[in-house]
Amino acid sequence: MKIIIVGATGTLGKKVTESLKPYGHELIRVGSKSGDLQVDITDPASIEKLFAQTGRFDALVSVAGAGHFGPLQSMTIEDFKVGVASKLLGQVGLVLLGQHHIHPKGSFTLTSGILSEDPVRGGVNLSTVNGAVNSFAIAAATELQNDVRINAVSPGVVEDSPGFHATFPGHIPVTMDRVVAAYLKSILGAGSGQVIKVF
Amino acid sequence: MKIIIVGATGTLGKKVTESLKPYGHELIRVGSKSGDLQVDITDPASIEKLFAQTGRFDALVSVAGAGHFGPLQSMTIEDFKVGVASKLLGQVGLVLLGQHHIHPKGSFTLTSGILSEDPVRGGVNLSTVNGAVNSFAIAAATELQNDVRINAVSPGVVEDSPGFHATFPGHIPVTMDRVVAAYLKSILGAGSGQVIKVF
Repeated sequence: MKIIIVGATGTLGKKVTESLKPYGHELIRVGSKSGDLQVDITDPASIEKLFAQTGRFDALVSVAGAGHFGPLQSMTIEDFKVGVASKLLGQVGLVLLGQHHIHPKGSFTLTSGILSEDPVRGGVNLSTVNGAVNSFAIAAATELQNDVRINAVSPGVVEDSPGFHATFPGHIPVTMDRVVAAYLKSILGAGSGQVIKVF
Repeated sequence: MKIIIVGATGTLGKKVTESLKPYGHELIRVGSKSGDLQVDITDPASIEKLFAQTGRFDALVSVAGAGHFGPLQSMTIEDFKVGVASKLLGQVGLVLLGQHHIHPKGSFTLTSGILSEDPVRGGVNLSTVNGAVNSFAIAAATELQNDVRINAVSPGVVEDSPGFHATFPGHIPVTMDRVVAAYLKSILGAGSGQVIKVF
């Protein structure tokens, strides 16, 4: 299989990429500035350019997408649009455009997160975007053609990102191994339209 | 209480407005083109102008917001932005801007819908936006100040909209009375951070 990993050079993306290596697939590591290829997921033209470079593929994994973090009280609509443009429309764009380049029986794996249902202070934008990505995967699974699958992996805060732990008081950090396993399940498994929760 | 109803002239908005009348509150009916006042919820400046006209208020109910309906296969990112700009960012904008004009112990009531978890063909954009609105309400409830509440009402397809029934095969239409009761519960009740499902 040819597997595109968008966000392959991030903390989580590196681990997902590493975990896929033993399976012998062709891995295309995509980053915003590093990796084998580059993409700006907030720009549809950049996404189209990516697929022109990769050619047809079997799986696309997105561990990419930013959001705004900050108090609701001072949040502006412009602040809110950060997550909408990146983690939501960026990931949706990878699917809307990617559906025309993916092989039959291929798969999309997107990333949401625990904040959709278990919020933390300052996380309203990411909560919203995560809920959106989950529902997108549930709905898109019913319409993708040629047996193409789609799932969303929804991780809790991970042990390997101690810098975030204070922002998630009382959240029990999950091991990176469990998070990586969720991505493998989506990419190599059989399910579709699932929100794979790792928390 | 001074209650602002955004979308008051729609099928659902009319019924919600009607049901509030016996309680003796001051009702401000807002539409995009009709009603006591007008607003374009996709335009933050228009929302600010609305609050300048209403002055401080006790409750805001949004039964407004459009989305794109159509097959995933031909959906463009521009199509997808229709629901994001209107039903998502429009409703979020009413809260982000409205939080600075609402009285202590006031409430926001937004509208999502069953498609967030139970999709129909052609509904990917609305599914996504509904999931986003639900998670926004869950998260915003934890940060709103001065005991201000927020909930999302998530209706199924309603009996009074037979034109939609063919689009929702096998969905059991819900009575308008049940949907209206959910809005009353949010506006006049005690809960916050709830997704009030009517299906």
